Amino acid sequence: MPLVAPASAPTADRAPLSAARADAIATSFSKQGLMTTFGAALTRVEAGEVEIAMPWSEGVTQQHGFFHGGAVGALADSACGYAALSMVGEGEAGLTAEYKINLLSPAKGERLVAVGRVIKPGRTLIVAQGDVFAEQDGRRKAVATMLMTLCVVRTLEHV
Amino acid sequence: MPLVAPASAPTADRAPLSAARADAIATSFSKQGLMTTFGAALTRVEAGEVEIAMPWSEGVTQQHGFFHGGAVGALADSACGYAALSMVGEGEAGLTAEYKINLLSPAKGERLVAVGRVIKPGRTLIVAQGDVFAEQDGRRKAVATMLMTLCVVRTLEHV
Amino acid sequence: MPLVAPASAPTADRAPLSAARADAIATSFSKQGLMTTFGAALTRVEAGEVEIAMPWSEGVTQQHGFFHGGAVGALADSACGYAALSMVGEGEAGLTAEYKINLLSPAKGERLVAVGRVIKPGRTLIVAQGDVFAEQDGRRKAVATMLMTLCVVRTLEHV
Amino acid sequence: MPLVAPASAPTADRAPLSAARADAIATSFSKQGLMTTFGAALTRVEAGEVEIAMPWSEGVTQQHGFFHGGAVGALADSACGYAALSMVGEGEAGLTAEYKINLLSPAKGERLVAVGRVIKPGRTLIVAQGDVFAEQDGRRKAVATMLMTLCVVRTLEHV
Repeated sequence: MPLVAPASAPTADRAPLSAARADAIATSFSKQGLMTTFGAALTRVEAGEVEIAMPWSEGVTQQHGFFHGGAVGALADSACGYAALSMVGEGEAGLTAEYKINLLSPAKGERLVAVGRVIKPGRTLIVAQGDVFAEQDGRRKAVATMLMTLCVVRTLEHV
Repeated sequence: MPLVAPASAPTADRAPLSAARADAIATSFSKQGLMTTFGAALTRVEAGEVEIAMPWSEGVTQQHGFFHGGAVGALADSACGYAALSMVGEGEAGLTAEYKINLLSPAKGERLVAVGRVIKPGRTLIVAQGDVFAEQDGRRKAVATMLMTLCVVRTLEHV
Repeated sequence: MPLVAPASAPTADRAPLSAARADAIATSFSKQGLMTTFGAALTRVEAGEVEIAMPWSEGVTQQHGFFHGGAVGALADSACGYAALSMVGEGEAGLTAEYKINLLSPAKGERLVAVGRVIKPGRTLIVAQGDVFAEQDGRRKAVATMLMTLCVVRTLEHV
Repeated sequence: MPLVAPASAPTADRAPLSAARADAIATSFSKQGLMTTFGAALTRVEAGEVEIAMPWSEGVTQQHGFFHGGAVGALADSACGYAALSMVGEGEAGLTAEYKINLLSPAKGERLVAVGRVIKPGRTLIVAQGDVFAEQDGRRKAVATMLMTLCVVRTLEHV
């Protein structure tokens, strides 16, 4: 029986990201004060997939000096949000309706990397999935996974 | 930089399922009245991955005659639960603590297939991921994705 | 400081449910094959709040004879869905986008009661909350809590 | 029929918080670099219920100058985590396993207040619920609701 792609399909067959959309994402990201506070940077922007990384700093820790779960969530939140934004139409934006995150391991390391990926694009709703990794001593470990629902809104204002 | 497996890693490197554990899963499944009501069957049982399928019937529909979202959730729930049970130790069981499910498309078709997969085994908690597909006219479409947390309990009674 | 209602506000100040809408809900419910299979009944329908109950039967159990988590989820799913349907406009319907459910206690008893409640009505999205109780020997115990997102769609077909 | 408390029961009948536990929470909070970065403060600590507030600042915004959804999530995360910590036994801690958050309204205002509340204490798992409010011009509006699962661990180290 022919098998269509599972929910976690690779993004290889997606249309390339337009320069205008890539610019819009970079501009929006630069306006997120929280990402600046985190020292976070967009490290990869593709159609349907966005990666954001942030270094460890005292200012993003929980009580044991690891990355705070809230920082892990915020990074994945932004990565999924921009992955969605990479796939909406002209003059549209994706607003986060909700997300669930499972913390898989202590977020311990020098750098945190969140990868957001659209697993179901839609005209009204977009579903995205995020994976967060902590890098330590040259190794990368999965520390969290997120499942997010976004609502597509028609507005030039929200881009 | 060496990259360790993402959360959705393939299960290829897992230890094979013991015959005793496979039996325990089959026995438990046969005792689930709801799965019998659904006409559901275990179609694949591996270490860390379990597939369950059910045919369409009037008795599992929502108001438009598609599979009810609750039936979709229940099938994924069982698939994830048994995937977890395939990986716990002797005399242990995995109790569902919670799950989140995103309904991606109308669950329309002749057969529903749920694949549950452990993405993070642990001594106390197990995280599993489920994908549900609807099959129609020889094609398979992703209709839902689930993220579940299970709690490992030490008891011969709960297996 | 004046305090506005929290997310779990009482529904007392909502407009009463129209007879047409109450009929639409009863009709839709009667068409859900799964609810018939469960022997479930609408026990209360108000604007923004719906209660559904089902008796215990062999056909809805998990391997220990308790209500199956999937049945618990399905009942809450329907209760939240109809709570949402009670609040959408003429010719609109609420489609379940996703939900999360926490199983709080074993669902053991003679009857299961799910109460769905809209906590955030909206033109595009509705957020509902569900509580499921098991009744045994004249006592009612909370066994699960659900948080659901629905998408409002404009169609006479989906009511 | 006698009705036992729903999942969102008031916390009135809980044992008062011990001074030692209140100290442990204050100490842990003061070590969370992220809360310091946010300018957040513990504004209420009771057995099973904790409130945390943070003022608006440029450093916690999303691209439109509202509170970033990730900051909203992080505040609720900490409030729920400390609500859980207020209820575990001597030498125990509550580690966040997962949470789901629904963003209900734009988080716009001068101050953000998160209230975390244990809705199901347990020896192995704790379920908490969080509500986040934005305050603006003397009014308080619900902007998010969270449902969290924590795992109780036996260790003096994690308090």
